[in-house]
Amino acid sequence: MAVHSSDPAAVREFREPVTPAGRALLDLLAGHFQQIRDEAEEHDRNSTMLVDVFTGLQKDGVLGATVPVELGGLGVDSLYDVCLALMSVAEADASTALALHMQLSRGLTLTHEWRHGGDTARSLAERLLRPMASGEAVVCTTVKDPGGGRVVTRLTPAEDGGWVLSGRKILASMAPIATHFVVSARAEPAEGPHRSAAAMLTRQTPGLTVTDRWDGLGMRSSGSVDIVLDECPIAAGDVFLRGPVGERDDATLAGQTVSSITMLGIYTGIAQAARDFTVHALRRRGTPGAATRTLVTEIEARLYALRTTVAATLASADYYNSEFTGDPAERGRRMMFDFQRAKLMVNHLAPEIVNNCLTVIGGASYVASNPLSRYYRDVRAGAFMHPFTYPDAVDYLSDTTFDHAG
Amino acid sequence: MAVHSSDPAAVREFREPVTPAGRALLDLLAGHFQQIRDEAEEHDRNSTMLVDVFTGLQKDGVLGATVPVELGGLGVDSLYDVCLALMSVAEADASTALALHMQLSRGLTLTHEWRHGGDTARSLAERLLRPMASGEAVVCTTVKDPGGGRVVTRLTPAEDGGWVLSGRKILASMAPIATHFVVSARAEPAEGPHRSAAAMLTRQTPGLTVTDRWDGLGMRSSGSVDIVLDECPIAAGDVFLRGPVGERDDATLAGQTVSSITMLGIYTGIAQAARDFTVHALRRRGTPGAATRTLVTEIEARLYALRTTVAATLASADYYNSEFTGDPAERGRRMMFDFQRAKLMVNHLAPEIVNNCLTVIGGASYVASNPLSRYYRDVRAGAFMHPFTYPDAVDYLSDTTFDHAG
Amino acid sequence: MAVHSSDPAAVREFREPVTPAGRALLDLLAGHFQQIRDEAEEHDRNSTMLVDVFTGLQKDGVLGATVPVELGGLGVDSLYDVCLALMSVAEADASTALALHMQLSRGLTLTHEWRHGGDTARSLAERLLRPMASGEAVVCTTVKDPGGGRVVTRLTPAEDGGWVLSGRKILASMAPIATHFVVSARAEPAEGPHRSAAAMLTRQTPGLTVTDRWDGLGMRSSGSVDIVLDECPIAAGDVFLRGPVGERDDATLAGQTVSSITMLGIYTGIAQAARDFTVHALRRRGTPGAATRTLVTEIEARLYALRTTVAATLASADYYNSEFTGDPAERGRRMMFDFQRAKLMVNHLAPEIVNNCLTVIGGASYVASNPLSRYYRDVRAGAFMHPFTYPDAVDYLSDTTFDHAG
Amino acid sequence: MAVHSSDPAAVREFREPVTPAGRALLDLLAGHFQQIRDEAEEHDRNSTMLVDVFTGLQKDGVLGATVPVELGGLGVDSLYDVCLALMSVAEADASTALALHMQLSRGLTLTHEWRHGGDTARSLAERLLRPMASGEAVVCTTVKDPGGGRVVTRLTPAEDGGWVLSGRKILASMAPIATHFVVSARAEPAEGPHRSAAAMLTRQTPGLTVTDRWDGLGMRSSGSVDIVLDECPIAAGDVFLRGPVGERDDATLAGQTVSSITMLGIYTGIAQAARDFTVHALRRRGTPGAATRTLVTEIEARLYALRTTVAATLASADYYNSEFTGDPAERGRRMMFDFQRAKLMVNHLAPEIVNNCLTVIGGASYVASNPLSRYYRDVRAGAFMHPFTYPDAVDYLSDTTFDHAG
Repeated sequence: MAVHSSDPAAVREFREPVTPAGRALLDLLAGHFQQIRDEAEEHDRNSTMLVDVFTGLQKDGVLGATVPVELGGLGVDSLYDVCLALMSVAEADASTALALHMQLSRGLTLTHEWRHGGDTARSLAERLLRPMASGEAVVCTTVKDPGGGRVVTRLTPAEDGGWVLSGRKILASMAPIATHFVVSARAEPAEGPHRSAAAMLTRQTPGLTVTDRWDGLGMRSSGSVDIVLDECPIAAGDVFLRGPVGERDDATLAGQTVSSITMLGIYTGIAQAARDFTVHALRRRGTPGAATRTLVTEIEARLYALRTTVAATLASADYYNSEFTGDPAERGRRMMFDFQRAKLMVNHLAPEIVNNCLTVIGGASYVASNPLSRYYRDVRAGAFMHPFTYPDAVDYLSDTTFDHAG
Repeated sequence: MAVHSSDPAAVREFREPVTPAGRALLDLLAGHFQQIRDEAEEHDRNSTMLVDVFTGLQKDGVLGATVPVELGGLGVDSLYDVCLALMSVAEADASTALALHMQLSRGLTLTHEWRHGGDTARSLAERLLRPMASGEAVVCTTVKDPGGGRVVTRLTPAEDGGWVLSGRKILASMAPIATHFVVSARAEPAEGPHRSAAAMLTRQTPGLTVTDRWDGLGMRSSGSVDIVLDECPIAAGDVFLRGPVGERDDATLAGQTVSSITMLGIYTGIAQAARDFTVHALRRRGTPGAATRTLVTEIEARLYALRTTVAATLASADYYNSEFTGDPAERGRRMMFDFQRAKLMVNHLAPEIVNNCLTVIGGASYVASNPLSRYYRDVRAGAFMHPFTYPDAVDYLSDTTFDHAG
Repeated sequence: MAVHSSDPAAVREFREPVTPAGRALLDLLAGHFQQIRDEAEEHDRNSTMLVDVFTGLQKDGVLGATVPVELGGLGVDSLYDVCLALMSVAEADASTALALHMQLSRGLTLTHEWRHGGDTARSLAERLLRPMASGEAVVCTTVKDPGGGRVVTRLTPAEDGGWVLSGRKILASMAPIATHFVVSARAEPAEGPHRSAAAMLTRQTPGLTVTDRWDGLGMRSSGSVDIVLDECPIAAGDVFLRGPVGERDDATLAGQTVSSITMLGIYTGIAQAARDFTVHALRRRGTPGAATRTLVTEIEARLYALRTTVAATLASADYYNSEFTGDPAERGRRMMFDFQRAKLMVNHLAPEIVNNCLTVIGGASYVASNPLSRYYRDVRAGAFMHPFTYPDAVDYLSDTTFDHAG
Repeated sequence: MAVHSSDPAAVREFREPVTPAGRALLDLLAGHFQQIRDEAEEHDRNSTMLVDVFTGLQKDGVLGATVPVELGGLGVDSLYDVCLALMSVAEADASTALALHMQLSRGLTLTHEWRHGGDTARSLAERLLRPMASGEAVVCTTVKDPGGGRVVTRLTPAEDGGWVLSGRKILASMAPIATHFVVSARAEPAEGPHRSAAAMLTRQTPGLTVTDRWDGLGMRSSGSVDIVLDECPIAAGDVFLRGPVGERDDATLAGQTVSSITMLGIYTGIAQAARDFTVHALRRRGTPGAATRTLVTEIEARLYALRTTVAATLASADYYNSEFTGDPAERGRRMMFDFQRAKLMVNHLAPEIVNNCLTVIGGASYVASNPLSRYYRDVRAGAFMHPFTYPDAVDYLSDTTFDHAG
């Protein structure tokens, strides 16, 4: 990761990328912000993805941003820079950033498989990364089964030596435009223990159905629909097989962190957009009153803490992510502990900022066409992003504190 | 006001009405809750009023609840009981409660005109109250002009000795089904100072247009549309004329309090509904974790403070409202000071409760069909209800504290 | 309980007593406030009780305020009025209010024993209540054993048919001036199960030592010292024996509520005193700035919610306390559930008010001689008052919600 | 500034110094922590400085840490590292850190004078820096006049061409052991405008009196006493003369930031110490309950945001402090805007952390000998540290936002 930081203060406040590839990604994205802003409200209303925007991003190579240069991508490998890029998109539309996160974070984790995985994994990763670089492959990764914790998605052995995949996934953002799916499932081989796994499918795979419209409180343009899997045939080489189910391996916390940590930028971007909209609106109104001045000050202070905390967390994640010399379990724990502490604060600070913005703008913010009403709905998704929910985070963080931390 | 309170503890916690008429109103309402609950989601989605529900309420005499018995109404004259009734409706659907508030609070203020006003006001009030009692008159009162503070709605003298009304009003809840409108305006007579006024129009009045659908972040079934007034002819006897514009008269704070204070029940009802939904859902889930137990405790404590504070405020408002022996300006200031302090806390506590409910329920609450996602949007309207916004309340309350309070 | 309430609004905001005896108590106390205010700082510094004040209260009959008229006391039997009286003392000095609480709440619970207890309990209660009325008996009640939950204070059978009491109690407020002690202990009779008990001792009882100075963060003049009990002889008739240890009896929650609920007034009084000091100081300073106006508004709103919530809780406690017709276990649970929800909010709101006061006053409030610096320390005791601590309250309230509440 | 950072993640979380000189300073300090911890409680109680500790720090060269190597000091020039050093001292005793801050921040600003000032300033700075390096000079800088904003300390022309200094300063931390004083004053020359100035005095200067004990709510061992100045003779060369009074020069915001920003470490250190004490105590207690787990999680998350925000702010301050190529006014505004936003969040987060610690530890934390009771008092000083108070910060930050920020 080539580091480039003209202005260290800007980097500390999450205002500048840290790698040339990150800079290039931001420059590519900049050409799309106006369109995203223009289309955001209508798609939010209709709960549809900004398909035209993604077509444009595809043409510009943005969908291959995190694919290694050797495989034809932009080679963005800094989590900090990916998070910053998602923040800048989220300032225009958080739903679009959430959908884009799918593709970019998949690039990051597939690159890890390609560099460090076993033969099957390397090959499979390369078969996905190359078309991602060209924009041919748009990869939706699904993690969540319906029903609150039960595993319903399973890989069972097929007669031809491959697998059969059945089950259902929810909240599969970007699925409406995806060409490929990476589906987490429990592999139940004929012999040996059940194992964690992820199967790759193309959209044409028999038995795969992408359901209609996602209808959420917010993030309505993210295309977070369900995927139904009805005896889909999967070739043996199209499965990433991991360790036995139920076996705790803290080293895997590193990959989980990489998959999700860049989403922190999305909620930071919503808060920044809310602040900007509010300050600009207030400037047109004339002398602000006492409460407005006080709340704007609180908005500024919280936004500063939010941005610096996220910047520090992502910079540290980049460091750990490139540092393989120590104990992998300890490395995994550190990455997740940082991530979860930051996530918890993001989910305190970002909604507070948005809320204060509505308060100072007043009734005008309560009209559906006012951007603040969208921010108010979108920002609340932060608490539910993977992993963990607040109740699970309390269990995780308090256990960590009492067990491990200094 | 005949007081009836079988269980003082229940009254203190805002769980029982304080008058027999209030009891009767609650009993009438109880027959409609299931229908309101059943229809709430769809109408929220479509931004349409629950018209069938209002037809039912009309048949049952609910729309005349606050009309004096002598004029054919139920004679509910307790602000506490009206607020409690609106809370119970809001537990099923806050939008419907907001629309109903229009009719019930108008009954209260017209009754005041009928009992204490001058000849013109008494006559006009009676002409409205009698058909309200029978359900023939559904009266939408509009207060707010567009454009942030400027007055745009004016009564100018007509050649026939009456008036001509022109301008525009926003957020006129219940307008889609209203038969009559009471429109606040600035009367600009040929001679003498400009005066505050309120003009009465029927829906058939030439020049009156009720605009289409209100499209808000929440409270979407409240029918809070705009009213356009284009040279509407108004008879001289159809106008309530008040004091000169710009002349401060703190006695009028009493009427403003009566008009709006019962809305506190709406936001209390949303918080209660969120808590009930959440506790019932959690009971089905098995042993709650640490964060869930902690947040449920905070929900219960806040809800208790919310209900007892609202109960005390409304009981005091009833007392002041029936107590005319002292200085009217002082009485007005006390009513508004209590109301605004309570309103500010309602707008802290109710959204915190709803927010905690989403946090413990998790991602399921983020689906549009989950009631919590509606509560999250609806409860945010509390900060914008008339009078005052938070910035205005800070000016009002801090001035009051430094000028008058002990 | 003869109810008297000239101004219902004042009662709802915890500004007026509800019984004539309560009115009389407040009038008696009023003569002592100046002295308490004058002496508070020095005694706080030295961690000594305001002994002269208590001598004066004794002369005026205040120490017998809650003793029935038939036994020579003032006959204050309203928890609301006792709480209001403690609030008014706490506005001058919270430590003195905490010490006085000992005597007044003991009067309430002994009166209950005297009216409803068995023969031994009635006789013992009367032997304490009569000298309390005259001011001869100053009764310190001790509940807490050292060491976090273990029982270390025990009554074992003596050869003469009485008991021997050994152990240690902490946080025995008012002990330095007490003439009598009521010490909770585990009675371990020769036969039958261990039982909860409370033993009465005079200060002259052999083996009883009152330790020196209590040195706390705050509440430093409350005399909350330790009591050491080294084989103290106790007559059989000087023990209140209750049910078997470990047997859950929710009816006892009523007595626990009565013992402690009036302490809510102490923290309300601190918050009120902080607000008054602050508003008066700000009035002398000239035009307040934006933050000051905003925080003063928040102070006023929180204080209003605090006072109305406490008023409602105490009024309900009075109602339940005089209402014996239902299920005693259910009555106990209701009293405690109300009390604990109110206590939790008192411990959120009162410290927030005091904290905001320091913020607007600035550095001047940080000098030890400034009353706000004492309020800041004293108000923090609220979270630790009996029963429960915050962690225990979360367990209690969440269990109650999931088990019993609607 | 030679940068050294073995572990970037640790630097981002404010756990490692960034320069070798900073490392050396931390190593020197480490030898004193045990003594500071051992003596903190008693000196807090007596409101006396830890004089023996300062003697030890003097011997070790710590008092010359921020003096350039060329002048005999350690040459610590990183604000980040000074702040980190003060944090580590504050974890043992915040008062001692506050006193030490006086000497270390004076070294930083005198070094700036020595490198960039005019002839008089350079010479005067060197005359102070050399004995600071050797530990002979202990320099107390005083900024604050009594009386809320009025200037009472003045330099008037003396007959000998020098000056006469009269007035009074408050909150002069470390004064009890100071050998020299740098006193801000208004210079009122015979001709020309009044100017901002700072006069240097030795302790032996006639007319200078250091008053007795400072008696504060907290920070009681910081020696923050008053200085009385009664016609003290000052040589012409012993005065730093700055620009005309009342002339706004945003470039000076840089120096003001340098003087005070490292104090952020003090309040971060208190929060860290409270967290560590609490977690260690809880580990000994067995399985934590629901509220404890939830609050410990909140403590960890807030502490993480606090540390990363402070780290980012100090790192940026170091960057700006070494970067002189741009507009000095813009540079000053950036430094102060960052500092004040961070300070506001420090003053939200640190007291919340300490407060949560008391809540989970319970009544034991309320005893004066428990460290948490000291942290609770000390941490509240953060809101009052120079510049600005909260009300002033709201004015400053909201003005900045509406005037300058993006």
